[in-house]
Amino acid sequence: MGRGGERRAIALANPGLNGRPFATPTLWAAIQYLMPGENAPEHRHTQHAFRFVLEGEGVWTVVGGDPVAMRRGDFLPQAGWNWHAHHNATRAPMAWIDGLDIPLQYITEAQFFEFGRDEISEAEQTTPERSRSERLWGHPGLAPLAASARPGTPGSPLLAYRWEQTDRALADQLAIEREGYGGTVEPGHAAVRYTDPVTGQDVLPTIRVEFHRVVRGAETAPVRETGSSVYTVFDGSGTVTVGDKSWSVSRGDLFVVPSWQPFSARSQAGGSDSDSGALDLFRFSDSPVFEALKLNRTLTEGNTK
Amino acid sequence: MGRGGERRAIALANPGLNGRPFATPTLWAAIQYLMPGENAPEHRHTQHAFRFVLEGEGVWTVVGGDPVAMRRGDFLPQAGWNWHAHHNATRAPMAWIDGLDIPLQYITEAQFFEFGRDEISEAEQTTPERSRSERLWGHPGLAPLAASARPGTPGSPLLAYRWEQTDRALADQLAIEREGYGGTVEPGHAAVRYTDPVTGQDVLPTIRVEFHRVVRGAETAPVRETGSSVYTVFDGSGTVTVGDKSWSVSRGDLFVVPSWQPFSARSQAGGSDSDSGALDLFRFSDSPVFEALKLNRTLTEGNTK
Amino acid sequence: MGRGGERRAIALANPGLNGRPFATPTLWAAIQYLMPGENAPEHRHTQHAFRFVLEGEGVWTVVGGDPVAMRRGDFLPQAGWNWHAHHNATRAPMAWIDGLDIPLQYITEAQFFEFGRDEISEAEQTTPERSRSERLWGHPGLAPLAASARPGTPGSPLLAYRWEQTDRALADQLAIEREGYGGTVEPGHAAVRYTDPVTGQDVLPTIRVEFHRVVRGAETAPVRETGSSVYTVFDGSGTVTVGDKSWSVSRGDLFVVPSWQPFSARSQAGGSDSDSGALDLFRFSDSPVFEALKLNRTLTEGNTK
Amino acid sequence: MGRGGERRAIALANPGLNGRPFATPTLWAAIQYLMPGENAPEHRHTQHAFRFVLEGEGVWTVVGGDPVAMRRGDFLPQAGWNWHAHHNATRAPMAWIDGLDIPLQYITEAQFFEFGRDEISEAEQTTPERSRSERLWGHPGLAPLAASARPGTPGSPLLAYRWEQTDRALADQLAIEREGYGGTVEPGHAAVRYTDPVTGQDVLPTIRVEFHRVVRGAETAPVRETGSSVYTVFDGSGTVTVGDKSWSVSRGDLFVVPSWQPFSARSQAGGSDSDSGALDLFRFSDSPVFEALKLNRTLTEGNTK
Repeated sequence: MGRGGERRAIALANPGLNGRPFATPTLWAAIQYLMPGENAPEHRHTQHAFRFVLEGEGVWTVVGGDPVAMRRGDFLPQAGWNWHAHHNATRAPMAWIDGLDIPLQYITEAQFFEFGRDEISEAEQTTPERSRSERLWGHPGLAPLAASARPGTPGSPLLAYRWEQTDRALADQLAIEREGYGGTVEPGHAAVRYTDPVTGQDVLPTIRVEFHRVVRGAETAPVRETGSSVYTVFDGSGTVTVGDKSWSVSRGDLFVVPSWQPFSARSQAGGSDSDSGALDLFRFSDSPVFEALKLNRTLTEGNTK
Repeated sequence: MGRGGERRAIALANPGLNGRPFATPTLWAAIQYLMPGENAPEHRHTQHAFRFVLEGEGVWTVVGGDPVAMRRGDFLPQAGWNWHAHHNATRAPMAWIDGLDIPLQYITEAQFFEFGRDEISEAEQTTPERSRSERLWGHPGLAPLAASARPGTPGSPLLAYRWEQTDRALADQLAIEREGYGGTVEPGHAAVRYTDPVTGQDVLPTIRVEFHRVVRGAETAPVRETGSSVYTVFDGSGTVTVGDKSWSVSRGDLFVVPSWQPFSARSQAGGSDSDSGALDLFRFSDSPVFEALKLNRTLTEGNTK
Repeated sequence: MGRGGERRAIALANPGLNGRPFATPTLWAAIQYLMPGENAPEHRHTQHAFRFVLEGEGVWTVVGGDPVAMRRGDFLPQAGWNWHAHHNATRAPMAWIDGLDIPLQYITEAQFFEFGRDEISEAEQTTPERSRSERLWGHPGLAPLAASARPGTPGSPLLAYRWEQTDRALADQLAIEREGYGGTVEPGHAAVRYTDPVTGQDVLPTIRVEFHRVVRGAETAPVRETGSSVYTVFDGSGTVTVGDKSWSVSRGDLFVVPSWQPFSARSQAGGSDSDSGALDLFRFSDSPVFEALKLNRTLTEGNTK
Repeated sequence: MGRGGERRAIALANPGLNGRPFATPTLWAAIQYLMPGENAPEHRHTQHAFRFVLEGEGVWTVVGGDPVAMRRGDFLPQAGWNWHAHHNATRAPMAWIDGLDIPLQYITEAQFFEFGRDEISEAEQTTPERSRSERLWGHPGLAPLAASARPGTPGSPLLAYRWEQTDRALADQLAIEREGYGGTVEPGHAAVRYTDPVTGQDVLPTIRVEFHRVVRGAETAPVRETGSSVYTVFDGSGTVTVGDKSWSVSRGDLFVVPSWQPFSARSQAGGSDSDSGALDLFRFSDSPVFEALKLNRTLTEGNTK
């Protein structure tokens, strides 16, 4: 098996895309598994990428020599042109979502790729509690002054956004709403965007990533946006409506919202199927592309329900 | 005594500024005290301001109806044109540094001022552990999506940068340096900049705020910059050199570095005079003014020592 | 014939693009003809477009009710979402290049389209010497203050860049070079970029447009860039090299430079085949897309000749 | 007489500024005369500056070795840190307005100054019809591609904005208004802003420069802005109102509008006192400083007349 094949991934192929193995016209999504003891060799590419962990823990990504632990709910951006490799140090397989802008860069012929070292060092195979990137960039509102701590390429230098923080931020928004103040997108709908602490902008130049929490019984207002999104049901269950179609979703489901199709979600999550008692949706989209090119449009319809 | 006089502050008057009660040509610095039970009534002004707590705890600032607790080492930005008031709920007086861009706005005739309510509500006199601003904006790299959570005026929506985070960020940088990696400004010199999470830029449009930690025995390379700075020795002791003058400093001292004067600091901090075993310097400057107007210049001299 | 078919255009279909009628992965190029007395009805679309006149004069474009005359060598940008129509008032057919970002907007599903009025008014069928857009925005370095003169959509409000100006700008650069000063890209190679006077940036958010003049005997250094270009030989003749292929070109030829293929041109233009005695190349590319997404790379090789 | 004194200038000293020889808190304005054959030696400074010619012609400024002719009505920006000198080749004295941000840079301690060559070369003492800067940057909407043509410092690379262009742009706006379209600020009030063609922004980083033409009988609506302005009556006559004071003005008068004072002008210009039959006002202000620091406010009152 060639080196490039050592990553074991199942790509989502949108049947609306004429046989191309892409989730949307600009985005690639795959479920990637790594077996115990397995490595994925080091390489780098211009494609922007991320991992979002669905199950398991103990694998880590080594980015520029900095080992980053991965655990369920963690979001790990991988900005283009950084060296990276994976290693699974646990006895169980792990599963995560790989998201990349492969179709965009393929179509526009922007892509470059290079192989790295065959082996990562022993020091890189340890799993520290916090990566160096988190120690430098993981303190809210505090940026290191050192030039050596600044990223050399576009995209976030913070290599892990931990589930505890995401979960707490969402819970905080809902608590503030209950206290009578703003902070949620709409009643019962909390949401955060993963951002690059250097710029406050999207975590990756071409991919927007968000986490939405819809409390049991709430329903989001239909929104139309130019650009396509991939959603993953991280926890809970409910009904989603895309255009004129509705269907039930539950933990582990993935679905796509095409450009300019109205999307809404109704939460039926309960204590038995959700840790948070809510419908927890992980979302990524190509919105930064549309905004950078000034092609973005949004229309939020009144929630007439 | 008029309403405006109810804030008890001792302004630093730089003798080089021809009798004007300013710390530097653009910056105002004052030590403000609030006695037990005392209030400072609500007002707002276009001047950008901050508080940095030197001693005590228990006072809070109410910003836009959001009470924010204050404790030693906390940094609290107060972007222009937000309503704010103070209340001291403890039995002890409190002391903090007030920093503002009063001279700049006075000279350029940019200032506006309005009185607010005479009394703040009872709900605003409670002291929650975390302000709403911290619950919305205090999670590293996570931005709330809600329009209602976005600030209406320039400057950081995060109203408190807690000492625990600052202290830990500095300790992390020094630990990474000891492990053999970059992350510090120079050997033994860790530093963070307080940033606006919305933009990643300076916490206030006209004032840069940083915290520097110099380990015992280390000395920083002389740096010249256009623009003026005010330094406060938060902890520890050492020797500072500004231009061709040197002097000893220790906890509580304030001093000014004028434009284009080379500045360096040597740490003599030890276990008996510093919690961190280092010289801890809080700094604010008018650098964003120079950068916005493209008048900034910096020259770092080789540390020939 | 339906309304949409009333534009008579011959699209360039790049054989490397699997049968799609596109010039490059992101750009559409067509030669459009309008017969005497013919109109093209009013419509608008989100696609950014331009016209560059190859032959004839007397046609005009009506943009937002402002009639703009068209003559050989004129460049007429048509930023997305502005109403526009054409009318040919002369006795001769006219030919121009239509350039659009159709493939980009098609692939990303960003496109919107609307029909406008069936007929344009009689006042709009006159041909003033200068359009209102030129009278408002055509004075170098002078911007109108009026809000009503500001464009409502992204892209240049200047609707015509006249050949006299382009020709003179190129001649000026070459004259300055002969006087011993800089100003040309390299010896014998003058070039201008069409810019939006509001921003100084590219004339359209997704399309870069330039005009290059290479004097007889000169050869440009090979340049590699991410992104694709379409070139038109406006005047003169020469040899172009794309990757490892070279071929002769002369007035009226069109060719494509794919992403990351080195490109150079050698001028063999003389008095008999060129008004300027030089190889005059009109170029458009998708470079702004790559720059906005931070995917741009450029490599200029030493001209080893 | 020392070298620095060889410039013969009469500075405007605003009596409201406590004896400082400044026109406004941030701006310096002076009338400068150069006698026949006189030179002003080469120097450079960080202060941004400009010249606006009131009378005469034949002098030129040499900027970076590029001689620029000066004639009545011409506007010549001089961005900071560029070498420059003057020479008067005619038999008559010349008069122009010098505008600089001296007070701003003095107060903020941002200023640097260096002397240049004692003599300028003979080649620099010729007066070409168009400077190299105009040949490179004076074609509307066309930017040279060459790196050597790009300015190395902030501020416009176009060194002369000729009166013919300014005059025509204003006449064009008024003609478009008469044809029933927008384009003027308000009825009978045309205005242009001098801009940097590289950015489309203000011609100098700290100084905004505009030219306003008010037709006979028209009156401008009162406007309040943060920041101070200096006006010169280039031609015509009228009545100006600043705050609650009004007075008559005519050709050659200078006056100041302080921060946040409402300003309006009524034109009484006629054929006998104005080439254009209008009140022609040249204005410069410190607005870019306020905008860069996000301290700008504007209030346009209804013209109740």
